[in-house]
Amino acid sequence: MSNPEIAIIMSSVFDMTVMKEAAKVLDQFGIQYEIEILDLHRDPDCVSSFVRTSEAAGISVFIAGASGAAHLPGMIAAFTSAPVIGVPIKAIHSIDGLDAIYSILQMPQGIPVATMALNGARNAALFALQIMACKHPSYHQLVAAYKNKQKTEAQHSAQQLKKIGYEQFISSSK
Amino acid sequence: MSNPEIAIIMSSVFDMTVMKEAAKVLDQFGIQYEIEILDLHRDPDCVSSFVRTSEAAGISVFIAGASGAAHLPGMIAAFTSAPVIGVPIKAIHSIDGLDAIYSILQMPQGIPVATMALNGARNAALFALQIMACKHPSYHQLVAAYKNKQKTEAQHSAQQLKKIGYEQFISSSK
Amino acid sequence: MSNPEIAIIMSSVFDMTVMKEAAKVLDQFGIQYEIEILDLHRDPDCVSSFVRTSEAAGISVFIAGASGAAHLPGMIAAFTSAPVIGVPIKAIHSIDGLDAIYSILQMPQGIPVATMALNGARNAALFALQIMACKHPSYHQLVAAYKNKQKTEAQHSAQQLKKIGYEQFISSSK
Amino acid sequence: MSNPEIAIIMSSVFDMTVMKEAAKVLDQFGIQYEIEILDLHRDPDCVSSFVRTSEAAGISVFIAGASGAAHLPGMIAAFTSAPVIGVPIKAIHSIDGLDAIYSILQMPQGIPVATMALNGARNAALFALQIMACKHPSYHQLVAAYKNKQKTEAQHSAQQLKKIGYEQFISSSK
Amino acid sequence: MSNPEIAIIMSSVFDMTVMKEAAKVLDQFGIQYEIEILDLHRDPDCVSSFVRTSEAAGISVFIAGASGAAHLPGMIAAFTSAPVIGVPIKAIHSIDGLDAIYSILQMPQGIPVATMALNGARNAALFALQIMACKHPSYHQLVAAYKNKQKTEAQHSAQQLKKIGYEQFISSSK
Amino acid sequence: MSNPEIAIIMSSVFDMTVMKEAAKVLDQFGIQYEIEILDLHRDPDCVSSFVRTSEAAGISVFIAGASGAAHLPGMIAAFTSAPVIGVPIKAIHSIDGLDAIYSILQMPQGIPVATMALNGARNAALFALQIMACKHPSYHQLVAAYKNKQKTEAQHSAQQLKKIGYEQFISSSK
Amino acid sequence: MSNPEIAIIMSSVFDMTVMKEAAKVLDQFGIQYEIEILDLHRDPDCVSSFVRTSEAAGISVFIAGASGAAHLPGMIAAFTSAPVIGVPIKAIHSIDGLDAIYSILQMPQGIPVATMALNGARNAALFALQIMACKHPSYHQLVAAYKNKQKTEAQHSAQQLKKIGYEQFISSSK
Amino acid sequence: MSNPEIAIIMSSVFDMTVMKEAAKVLDQFGIQYEIEILDLHRDPDCVSSFVRTSEAAGISVFIAGASGAAHLPGMIAAFTSAPVIGVPIKAIHSIDGLDAIYSILQMPQGIPVATMALNGARNAALFALQIMACKHPSYHQLVAAYKNKQKTEAQHSAQQLKKIGYEQFISSSK
Repeated sequence: MSNPEIAIIMSSVFDMTVMKEAAKVLDQFGIQYEIEILDLHRDPDCVSSFVRTSEAAGISVFIAGASGAAHLPGMIAAFTSAPVIGVPIKAIHSIDGLDAIYSILQMPQGIPVATMALNGARNAALFALQIMACKHPSYHQLVAAYKNKQKTEAQHSAQQLKKIGYEQFISSSK
Repeated sequence: MSNPEIAIIMSSVFDMTVMKEAAKVLDQFGIQYEIEILDLHRDPDCVSSFVRTSEAAGISVFIAGASGAAHLPGMIAAFTSAPVIGVPIKAIHSIDGLDAIYSILQMPQGIPVATMALNGARNAALFALQIMACKHPSYHQLVAAYKNKQKTEAQHSAQQLKKIGYEQFISSSK
Repeated sequence: MSNPEIAIIMSSVFDMTVMKEAAKVLDQFGIQYEIEILDLHRDPDCVSSFVRTSEAAGISVFIAGASGAAHLPGMIAAFTSAPVIGVPIKAIHSIDGLDAIYSILQMPQGIPVATMALNGARNAALFALQIMACKHPSYHQLVAAYKNKQKTEAQHSAQQLKKIGYEQFISSSK
Repeated sequence: MSNPEIAIIMSSVFDMTVMKEAAKVLDQFGIQYEIEILDLHRDPDCVSSFVRTSEAAGISVFIAGASGAAHLPGMIAAFTSAPVIGVPIKAIHSIDGLDAIYSILQMPQGIPVATMALNGARNAALFALQIMACKHPSYHQLVAAYKNKQKTEAQHSAQQLKKIGYEQFISSSK
Repeated sequence: MSNPEIAIIMSSVFDMTVMKEAAKVLDQFGIQYEIEILDLHRDPDCVSSFVRTSEAAGISVFIAGASGAAHLPGMIAAFTSAPVIGVPIKAIHSIDGLDAIYSILQMPQGIPVATMALNGARNAALFALQIMACKHPSYHQLVAAYKNKQKTEAQHSAQQLKKIGYEQFISSSK
Repeated sequence: MSNPEIAIIMSSVFDMTVMKEAAKVLDQFGIQYEIEILDLHRDPDCVSSFVRTSEAAGISVFIAGASGAAHLPGMIAAFTSAPVIGVPIKAIHSIDGLDAIYSILQMPQGIPVATMALNGARNAALFALQIMACKHPSYHQLVAAYKNKQKTEAQHSAQQLKKIGYEQFISSSK
Repeated sequence: MSNPEIAIIMSSVFDMTVMKEAAKVLDQFGIQYEIEILDLHRDPDCVSSFVRTSEAAGISVFIAGASGAAHLPGMIAAFTSAPVIGVPIKAIHSIDGLDAIYSILQMPQGIPVATMALNGARNAALFALQIMACKHPSYHQLVAAYKNKQKTEAQHSAQQLKKIGYEQFISSSK
Repeated sequence: MSNPEIAIIMSSVFDMTVMKEAAKVLDQFGIQYEIEILDLHRDPDCVSSFVRTSEAAGISVFIAGASGAAHLPGMIAAFTSAPVIGVPIKAIHSIDGLDAIYSILQMPQGIPVATMALNGARNAALFALQIMACKHPSYHQLVAAYKNKQKTEAQHSAQQLKKIGYEQFISSSK
C-alpha cells in the first residue's frame, strides 16, 4: 500500500464536524489520506514541521479547514509549493462565516489558497482528487464517475417529480 | 512543442485588464496556455463545446475570471472533471466585488471551484502550475523558485528598511 | 386543455420547500404549469435542451429558484428570449441568502433576470401571471382579484384591530 | 401611431444618468415609451394618479428607477396589476447601492417588483420588451436579434483575441 | 378626555409582535394613542387618507413600523409635515433586518424619517413623548422620570453585583 | 430676539463639511440655533456640561453628527430628556459609513436617538423644525412651505422633461 | 492582599453571560479584579466618577464589554490614559454583532480601544494580564503557562486523533 | 541608551504608507522602537525567529499591520506571550478593509490580538505606550500630555467656531 498523498488538516477539534465530510469522500473512493489537527495559534511551530515531514512522506495536496481568523490554510501555503485547498468553517462566534471566508480567500500575490464554499469540505476532497488526477489518471475516472452518479440521481429526481407531481414528490421525499 | 494544458478564460473583453496578469505569469515561466473569451451569457453553447474541444486537445486546468453574476467558472466546472480555478473580478457596477466572490465561491456539493482572492489572476496562474506539478515535477521547481524569489525580495526590503530607516526607505521606494 | 405556458424550475430537491409556493399560487388560479428540477451544475446540458423543448411546447415564462452560487436563472436567460424570473433561496450553508441574491440579480447587459425577494416564490408566480396577462387579458383580472382580496383582508385586519384593541387582537390572532 | 405601452419612471432628475439607458434601448428598437419623473416622496399623490392615467392610456409595463430608500418601484406596484420592473441606482450618499437594492427587492407577498442589477436600466428596457412580446410577437424577434447581435460581437471578440494574441488585443481595444 | 396625538402604525399583522411594545410604553404612561394597521402595499390609498384624517383629528406624531422593503414610514412622511418615527422590524425572510433599516433610514432630502434601532418600538414611543414634550411640558417629566427609574434600576443592579459577587448575581438573576 | 432652541453639534472639525448643511437650512428659515464642536472622546466632560448649560439656556432639540465610532449622539441622549437627532457621517477611514450608522442607530431601550440617512444633515434640521412645531405652530407652516416648494420643483422638472424630451432635458440640466 | 489592578465592566446585566468568562479566567489565575455594571446610557455620570475612583484605587487596565451601539469601552477610554480593552457582544437585537464591533473598533485618533473578537471576554482577561506583565513579570509566566497548557492540550488532541482515527475520535469526544 | 521595547512590524512594503504613522508618534515622543517588514506569507520562518530574537533583545510589545488575509498579527501572537496590537489596513484589492479587520479581530481563545480601527496605526503606537506605562510611569505622563494637547486643540476649535461663526470657520480652516 502506497503512502497517502492527501492531507486533511483542521485547526481544532471543533472543526471535525465539518472536516470529517472530506474524510468520508476519500474513504468512499478508497483513497489514502492523512488527517491531522494542527492548532496553528496554540502550537505555531507545528505547521512548518508538519509540512516538511508530510511533504517528505509524499503528501502532495493539503486540505485545510478553519473558522474565525482562519489563518491555517494560508500559513500552510506559506510553507509549501504544493497546492493548498481552504475550507472556511462557520463556528459559534463567527461573523456569519465571513471572517473565515475573507481570512482564507484574500491571500496576497504568490501564495494562493484554493478556497471552497462555506463548510465545503466535500468539495475540498473532490478538488484534491481532481488535482491528483494529473498524476493518477484513474482519479479522473473516479471524479467523472462521482459526477455521473450525481447526474443520474439528479435526473432520477427530475423524472420522479414529473411522474408523481410535486405534492406526492414532497411527501415521498420526507 | 507540446499542446497547452492550461486555459485562461474570461467572460468579457472587460475582464482582460485583470486576467492578463495570469497570462503574464505563464509567459514569464515559458508555459504554454490558451487564452479565450467565453461570453457564457451571450453565447451559452460556447462553454460546453469549448470544454469538450479543449479537453480533447489536452487542457487539464481551467482558469476562469468573471464579474457580477459570475457564472462562468461554475459552468465550466459543470462540464468538466478537470480542476477549475475561479477569479472574482470587481467591475464598475459590482456590489464591491462581493457579487463575483459569492457567485464563484458558493458552488454546491460535487462541483468545486477553487476560488482565488478578488482580482487574484496571478495567483490563479500559480495555482494552475501547482496543480500541473503533479504531472510535471519541473513545475514544482518553477513555483518553488518563484516563491524563493519573492522571499529574497521580501528579505531584501526588510534589510533595506533596517539599514536606511523608514524615512529614507519611503523616499527611495517612491 | 391548452399547453402550459409557465415553467417552474428549481436546481435541486431541497429548493422544493420554497418553490412549491409558486406552484400553489398557480394551482389556486387553475393555471397550467410545468414543474421541473434542472440540476444545472450536475447535469449542465439539461438546461439548453429543456429550454428548447419547452419553448417549442409553448412555455413563455420561466420561473427559476436557486440557492448559493445560484446560476440557474441566469443560465436559462442565456438560452431564451422569453422572460425569466429568479427566486433567490436561503439554504443551510448560505451566506445569509446574499450569495443567491447577488448571483441572480447582477446579470450583465443584455440578459436580464427579474429577481424576486429572498424566498419570494409566490411573487414569482404572480409576476408570471402579470407577464402572461399581456396575452391573456383574463389573467389581469385574476391578479387584480388576488390583489383585491389581499386588500380586503388587510382592511379587515385593520378594522378588527380598531374594534377590539391590540391586546385582544393579539390573543385572537394566535 | 399607437400609444406607448411602456413607461420609464424615475424618482428624481439625478436618476436620469442611469435611466436614460433604458430610453436609448427603446429608441434603438423604435419602440414608443413614456418617460416621467415621479418624485414620490416630494409629490406622493402623483403616483396613484399617474398609474391610473397611464393605464387608461395603454401603459402595460412600468420601469421604475430609484436610489437610497427606493420606494418608487414598490409603490407603483401597489397601485397597478401590471408588471413593474425596478432599477436600483447607486447615488452619492448610497450605502454602496445596497439601500436601493434591498428597498426594491424585498417586496411583501402579493406585490412583486422585478428587480434588475444595480444601475441595470438597459436590462429593464429589454425585460419590458420580453414582457410585451407576449402580446407583440415581433418584439420576441427584436429581443432575439439583439441577443444574437451580442452573441456575434462576443464571438468576434473571442476570434480576434485568438488571432492577434492578448497583448495586441489589449492595445487594439484601447 | 382629549384626542390622541400619537399614532402607532404598522404595515401588517405580523409587525404587532414588535409594535405592541410601543403601545405598552404609552399605556404605562397613561398617554392616549391611536393604533392602526396600514397595509401600504396592499391598500396604497389608505395612507394618504389616514394621514389626512388623523392630522385633522389631532395626531401630531406618527410612529411607523415595517419589515423588508419597509416603505411605510417614508410614505407617511411624504404625506405629512408632522414628525415620523420609523421602526425597522426583522421578519422571517428579512436580510438580517438590514433591508428594513436601509429602506427606512435612507430617505432623500426634505422628507426625514427618524429611524430607531432594529425592533426598537419602545424607543419610538419614548421619542414620540420627547417630541410632544415641546407642547406638553408634563411629558418632559414623564420621560425624565422614566429615565430616572432606569438609572435607579441600573444603579441597583450595579450595587447588587458589588455586594454579592458575580456568581451569586448570576444565579439570583436567573 | 429669543434664545435658540436648536443646537447643532459635531464631534470634530472634519464633520463641518456635512453638518454645515443643517446650519444652512436653519439660516434659510431664519431660525436661531447654536452650533458647537463637542469632541466627546478628547474632551469627555464637555458633553454633560454643555447639555446642562444649553438646556438651561433653552435648547430643546439636539442635532449631533459624528463618524466612525460615532458615540456623540448617544451620549448627548444619555444626558438629556430632550429629543436628539443623529447624523451618521462617512469619513476617510469609515467602513463605508456603516460604522457611524450602527453606532448611532442601535441605542438601547430608554435612550432613543432619531437617526437620519448617511450624511443627512439637512433632514436633521428639518426634523428639528418638525419637532419644535409642536410648540411653534408657525414652524409647521415653514416645513409645509419647504415641502411644497420641493413638490413644485419636482413637478416643474417632470413637466420640463415631458415638454422637451429626455435628450434635451439632460443637456439643459448640465 | 493588594488592591485589584484590573476592572471588568459591562453596560448591562445581560452582558454578564459573556463577561463572566473574563472573571473566570482571572479567578483561575488567582488575580484580583473589580467587576462592575456601568450603564453608561442610563447613568452617564457613572463612567467619569468610576474611572476617577478606580484609577485612584489602583486600577491600571479596563476591560469593557457592550452590545449594540456599544459606547462604553470608548467612553472609558475618553476618561483615562490607562489601556482599555473592548469586548463586542452579540445580543438579541444586534445586527449580527457588527454594530458592537464597529462601535468599539472605529475609535478616532488619540483614544485607542483594544478590540477583542466577538464575545471574546476570555481573551480580554488574558490580554489584561499580558499588559500587567510589564509590571508584574510573574504574570508573564502565568500567560506563558496558560498558552503552554493550551499547546499541550492541542498536541494531545492531535495525537489522539492519529492514534484512534477520526471516527472513534468523534465518538469519544461527544 | 536603552534597547527598544516596542516593535512596529508590517507584512509588506505597501503597508508602510499606513504604518509610518505609528513610527511618527513614537519619534515625536522620543521613544525607541524597532521597525521591521516581516513578509509572513513569503518568508514564513521569519516570524518565529524574529519574535524569539526581539524578545531576547527586550521587545515587550508588538505592533503589527497587515491587509487582506491579514495573518501577521495573529501569527506573532501565536509565538509570544507579550501583547500584540493589530492594525487592519485597507489596500487596493481589499474587500473594503473588512478582510483585514476580520482576519485580525476574530482570534481564537487564548491568543488575543488587540485590534485597532481601520488604518489606525497612530492609535496602535499610543496603545503600546499605554501598555508600557505599567513599567515606565513616565509614559503615562506622555500619553496624558498627548491626550491633554488633543483636548486643548479640540477646545480651541470649539471656541474658534463660537467666536467667528461657521461660515468664517470653514473658510479659515481651509
